[in-house]
Amino acid sequence: MFLKALKGEEVSRPPVWMMRQAGRYLPDFMKLKAKYDFFTRCRTPELAAEITVMPIHQIGPDAAILFSDILVIPQAMGIDVEMRPDFGPYVPNPIRTPQMVADIPQNDAKVELQYVYDAIKVTKQMLNDEVPLIGFAGSPWTIMCYAVEGRGSKTFDKAKGFCFQYPEAAHVLLQKITDITIDYLKEKVKAGVDAIQVFDSWGGLLSPADYNKFSKPYIDQITGAIKDISPVIVFGKGCWYALDDYSKTGVSALGVDWTLNPKMARQLAGDKVTLQGNFDPARLLSPIPEIKSMVKEMIDGFGVNRYIANLGHGILPHIPVDHAKAFVDAVKEYKK
Amino acid sequence: MFLKALKGEEVSRPPVWMMRQAGRYLPDFMKLKAKYDFFTRCRTPELAAEITVMPIHQIGPDAAILFSDILVIPQAMGIDVEMRPDFGPYVPNPIRTPQMVADIPQNDAKVELQYVYDAIKVTKQMLNDEVPLIGFAGSPWTIMCYAVEGRGSKTFDKAKGFCFQYPEAAHVLLQKITDITIDYLKEKVKAGVDAIQVFDSWGGLLSPADYNKFSKPYIDQITGAIKDISPVIVFGKGCWYALDDYSKTGVSALGVDWTLNPKMARQLAGDKVTLQGNFDPARLLSPIPEIKSMVKEMIDGFGVNRYIANLGHGILPHIPVDHAKAFVDAVKEYKK
Repeated sequence: MFLKALKGEEVSRPPVWMMRQAGRYLPDFMKLKAKYDFFTRCRTPELAAEITVMPIHQIGPDAAILFSDILVIPQAMGIDVEMRPDFGPYVPNPIRTPQMVADIPQNDAKVELQYVYDAIKVTKQMLNDEVPLIGFAGSPWTIMCYAVEGRGSKTFDKAKGFCFQYPEAAHVLLQKITDITIDYLKEKVKAGVDAIQVFDSWGGLLSPADYNKFSKPYIDQITGAIKDISPVIVFGKGCWYALDDYSKTGVSALGVDWTLNPKMARQLAGDKVTLQGNFDPARLLSPIPEIKSMVKEMIDGFGVNRYIANLGHGILPHIPVDHAKAFVDAVKEYKK
Repeated sequence: MFLKALKGEEVSRPPVWMMRQAGRYLPDFMKLKAKYDFFTRCRTPELAAEITVMPIHQIGPDAAILFSDILVIPQAMGIDVEMRPDFGPYVPNPIRTPQMVADIPQNDAKVELQYVYDAIKVTKQMLNDEVPLIGFAGSPWTIMCYAVEGRGSKTFDKAKGFCFQYPEAAHVLLQKITDITIDYLKEKVKAGVDAIQVFDSWGGLLSPADYNKFSKPYIDQITGAIKDISPVIVFGKGCWYALDDYSKTGVSALGVDWTLNPKMARQLAGDKVTLQGNFDPARLLSPIPEIKSMVKEMIDGFGVNRYIANLGHGILPHIPVDHAKAFVDAVKEYKK
C-alpha cells in the first residue's frame, strides 16, 4: 500500500508510518538504549534490525524505516561524530576552513558503511515482506550543518556563515557529501531497501535564493541518481516554498511539515506528486478522541490517493504509546 | 521617514532599522554588558536609554527601538524570570498546571513596569526627535512559551502540550498575558514611543489551525486596542501563512522573515499594508560588496514605498560592525 501510494496508484486508504517511529517513546527501545550506546545500536546489525521492526508489531505502521542516523555519512568521510547523552550530536573537530574541506579523504561508502547494508539484510529477513523498508540519508546541506557547526543549533549560523564567507569551499564540501551519499544510497537499495527518504532537516534555515544555491541542487543530484532504482521521498522541513520546484525533479513523494495545511500543500506541490505528512508531533499530546478526529480531517484535506499519512516531523520522546497507536489506527479506520 | 512608511505615504527611499540593533555586535554594548547584568540594564532608565541610542550614532538607522526584553511581562505578572549567561531565559517555577494559571495575580502594568516608562522618557530626551522610538512586546503566545517551557527551546513542546492538554487553561493564561500587555503598551505610548512592534517569535511552531486558535486572536486584541493611539507592526516569525489575514486587522506593517522572497511576501500580504524585513541575519557575514548588492536586490523586490528595510530576525552577536553599517548604508544609498 505504501509503495502503491508512492507510485500514485489507487488505494482504499492512505498508508501510514511515523518519522522516528522506532524511537524513545517505546519502552522496549528505552531498554535497549540503557544497555547499548547510540552508535553501537546503529552498528550492530541485529540490534538495528530489532529496533527497526519493534514499532511494526507494537504500533502497526505500513512501512518500516531502518534504525540508523544521518551522521553515519560524516563519520564515513573521516569526520568524528559523537552522540552525547542529553546533548545530541557533537563533532570534536568541526570543518571551519577551506583547507579542512580540501583535506577530507575520498572514503568508500561501500567499505565504511558495510554495517548498514548488513543491518538492512537482517531487517528484511525479520520483516519477511510484511511491510516495505525505507532507507534514508540526510541532505548534503543538513549534513554540512553538523559538520561545520559541530553540534545542534537553532540557527546553524556557523554553517551558514561558512557558505557565505567561503562559497567555493562550501560547494566542494557539499559535492563531497553528495558523492558519498549517492554511493551509500545505491548500496542500500542493493541491500534491499524499498524506498529512500532524504531528510533536509535544516533547509528551512536558508532563504529561498540560498536554498536554491546550497541545498536543492545537491538533493536533485541524489534524486537523479536514485530515482530509477528506487522511489525517492524528499522531506525539506520548512521548505514549503520549494514544493513546486521539487515536484518536477522525479521524486515519488514530498514530505510536508505541519506549518502548512493540506490544501496549501497540495496547491503548492500540484497534483502529480504524492505528499507525505503532516500531523504536528506535539498534537499527539491531545486526548485520543481529538487525535482521531484531527487525523480524519487531515486525510480529508490531503485525499486518499497520492498521500502517505505521517507526522510533520519526528515523534517526540514523551508521547504515550497509546496516543501513537491511536494515530496509526485512525488512518487505518479512515472512511470518507 | 519611518513613520511615513508606516502610514503608507510616499518616501524617497525606504527607512531602515535592524532588530536587536542595540545589541552584542557593538563593542560599547559589550562594555556595559560586562559591568551590569541583563535586568539591571533593562531596569535602569539611564542605561536602557544609553543602549537604545548607541546604534543611532554608530550605525545610523532611521528608528530606535527601546532596549528592554519581552520577558518583563511575565515578571510583572509575578512569574520569576532570570537571564542566565550563556543559557538565556530561565523560569525557576514554570506554569505547568491549570491551578498555576488560576493563581497568577492581577498585577498592574502601570505600577510594575514604571521603569520602562521612565526609560522611554529619558530616551526621548536623548534622541531629541532625531529618529522615532519603537516600543515592543512579545505576543501572548510567545510569552506563554517561556512561562510554560521555562527556558528557550527549539520546539517548545511543553508549551504546545499545555495548549493541547489544557486548552481552557491555556486560553485563560493567554488572556491574562494579553490584558497586561495591552495596559503596558498603552502606558508606553503615553510615555512617548512613536510605534509599537509585537514580536511573535514562536508563532511559526504552531500549525496554521492552531495559530488561529492560540496566537493570532490575542495579537489581534492588542492591535485593536493600540492601533488608534500608535501604529502597530506585527512580526510573526515563520507565520507567512498568516500575512493575508493580518493585513486586514488594522496593523500598519507586517514583519517578514527571510524564508520568503519579497515577491512572495507582497503577494501574500496584498498591497495595502507596509512590509518590514527581511535580510537573512547570517547574510551579514558575506563580504561587504555582496551585502550591498543583496540589499539593492531586496529593495528592488519590495519596492520603495510601503516598505521598511530590516533584517528578517535579530542581528547576530558576531557580525562585524562595518558589515552592519554597510547594510544600513546600502539602504540609504539606494537608487532604483
